Amino acid sequence: MAAPGEFELIRRFFERPAAAGRARLGIGDDCALLDVPGGESLAVSTDMLVEGRHFFPDVDPEALGHKALAVNLSDLAAMGARPLGFTLALALPAADEAWLEAFSRGLFALADAQGCELVGGDTTRGPLALCVTVHGTVPPALALRRDGARAGDDLWVSGALGAAALAVERRLRGEPVPAGALARLDRPEPRVALGLGLRGLARAAIDLSDGLAGDLGHVLARSSAAAGVPLGAALERGALPVAPELDALPEDRRIALALGGGDDYELLFAAPAASRPGIERLGATIGLTLARIGRIDGESGLRLVARDGAATPLDVRSFDHFR
Amino acid sequence: MAAPGEFELIRRFFERPAAAGRARLGIGDDCALLDVPGGESLAVSTDMLVEGRHFFPDVDPEALGHKALAVNLSDLAAMGARPLGFTLALALPAADEAWLEAFSRGLFALADAQGCELVGGDTTRGPLALCVTVHGTVPPALALRRDGARAGDDLWVSGALGAAALAVERRLRGEPVPAGALARLDRPEPRVALGLGLRGLARAAIDLSDGLAGDLGHVLARSSAAAGVPLGAALERGALPVAPELDALPEDRRIALALGGGDDYELLFAAPAASRPGIERLGATIGLTLARIGRIDGESGLRLVARDGAATPLDVRSFDHFR
Repeated sequence: MAAPGEFELIRRFFERPAAAGRARLGIGDDCALLDVPGGESLAVSTDMLVEGRHFFPDVDPEALGHKALAVNLSDLAAMGARPLGFTLALALPAADEAWLEAFSRGLFALADAQGCELVGGDTTRGPLALCVTVHGTVPPALALRRDGARAGDDLWVSGALGAAALAVERRLRGEPVPAGALARLDRPEPRVALGLGLRGLARAAIDLSDGLAGDLGHVLARSSAAAGVPLGAALERGALPVAPELDALPEDRRIALALGGGDDYELLFAAPAASRPGIERLGATIGLTLARIGRIDGESGLRLVARDGAATPLDVRSFDHFR
Repeated sequence: MAAPGEFELIRRFFERPAAAGRARLGIGDDCALLDVPGGESLAVSTDMLVEGRHFFPDVDPEALGHKALAVNLSDLAAMGARPLGFTLALALPAADEAWLEAFSRGLFALADAQGCELVGGDTTRGPLALCVTVHGTVPPALALRRDGARAGDDLWVSGALGAAALAVERRLRGEPVPAGALARLDRPEPRVALGLGLRGLARAAIDLSDGLAGDLGHVLARSSAAAGVPLGAALERGALPVAPELDALPEDRRIALALGGGDDYELLFAAPAASRPGIERLGATIGLTLARIGRIDGESGLRLVARDGAATPLDVRSFDHFR
């Protein structure tokens, strides 16, 4: 049997019946056509995942399919946007059918669960790289922008922090990785329902890809610029939801991983105190722990406050792919 | 001076004042926010460009910046969509400032000329790969889909064909490339104004990236499926607008390059005979040669018709990146 060509492979693994589709026109034309509900804005985010940087060469392709979409859906979640559809551009060293089958299985399982349809793509030969561009919709006045935080807002974070960073650290050292930590790294859960529920409750949000300290730094920088006043934050050390996979580590390591470790894809959000009851109800409704971890204030910079009230300044520089 | 980090590089070369912007929210948040005019659909297309496959390792980065956006704008043109904004995901082996400066210059020159704003992006270290996802808008009833061609339609093509393929061939052989042919390969002109002008005149369109024969094959396959009847096409050999850069080649080579060579990014479109005067006026208005090269008919397959009326069957298989 001849090696299947590009068009056959795309058809076999990526074209699906359009029955449930929300796209007016999907794969197979020059462009996909999507309809945006009246009064809503289109939210767009793109991510490039490269072997050796965003995933290990021996990654399970099904997990990679999940993750490639998950990290993008996480951006929609952090904007409070409802998923609409995504495009996938794929550079592959070879047309490996088993790999494509597993990858597409992981991809579509998440796409179906989140109602986000594959509407277009591009496949080429090259060093393994994946580019997903995701599209969602949100009424613009309800979008959870990074620049909306104000002094006095509570800071909240979903889920638990640090497990993905522990997995990265262990993998890089060639040490065994606890299964729970590996699952957090390989199969992050985009917090789409949380983002939708936070419309009207939160004033600003970001998803944690670079680490809490660095990502909070982005919110503070943009919100300060938008508000025209310096903004900072105090985080309560005792309130940080450190992942149970880190229980065996020394206390300082646990806090360092929770604050500096990336790849958790939880949501960090700022909300006025009046939203507390609504946020607590939301957490109960969607079955997700939401921890109130600190407060935005008018003092520049980021501080970690111990139980005795002593404040330590934190470096807000985040992980940088070019350093 | 310390090597600049990712965020600094992005800011320096890719963040621009939002003054003229059509995006509600651009670079720097989890998602960009774009507004789609009422009654219009969003048109989306994505392309991944990889070194060694889509461009030569010694490509001029300014030309690459142009081309990365041009090939995507060409997809919007082929849908009759008006450019709105684009995202860029970039994997780079190193944070090379001179490279980024030239690349962004080429990119923004075209983006500004076409009113298509950079609204989001992602930068990472890795083997050089570029993923552009472009967004445009079009009233859905006027979209130039691939599946709208019908028996009796004229077939038209813009510009001239084969020069880009000649440049590829010469480059691969290490032979000198005529300047005109190199310009066609490195700096394709997306036919956006043509696509907009063809709204209401053409019934189907595609941009020529794989070659006339193969791309026409896509139109025939989709239009046949949509019409529920077999469709084919007869092309008049004497009507094919072969690029002047091919003048010195034997006649058969010229025709082969015009029919099979990719990378021209001209538009191929099908239109009823009643549209002829409108199409001719359009070509004169935008200063672009539009050649009527054949006709869609009810006989399966693609035929090349010589001046004496003799018809030769053509293979419609297009260039395939995985063969």
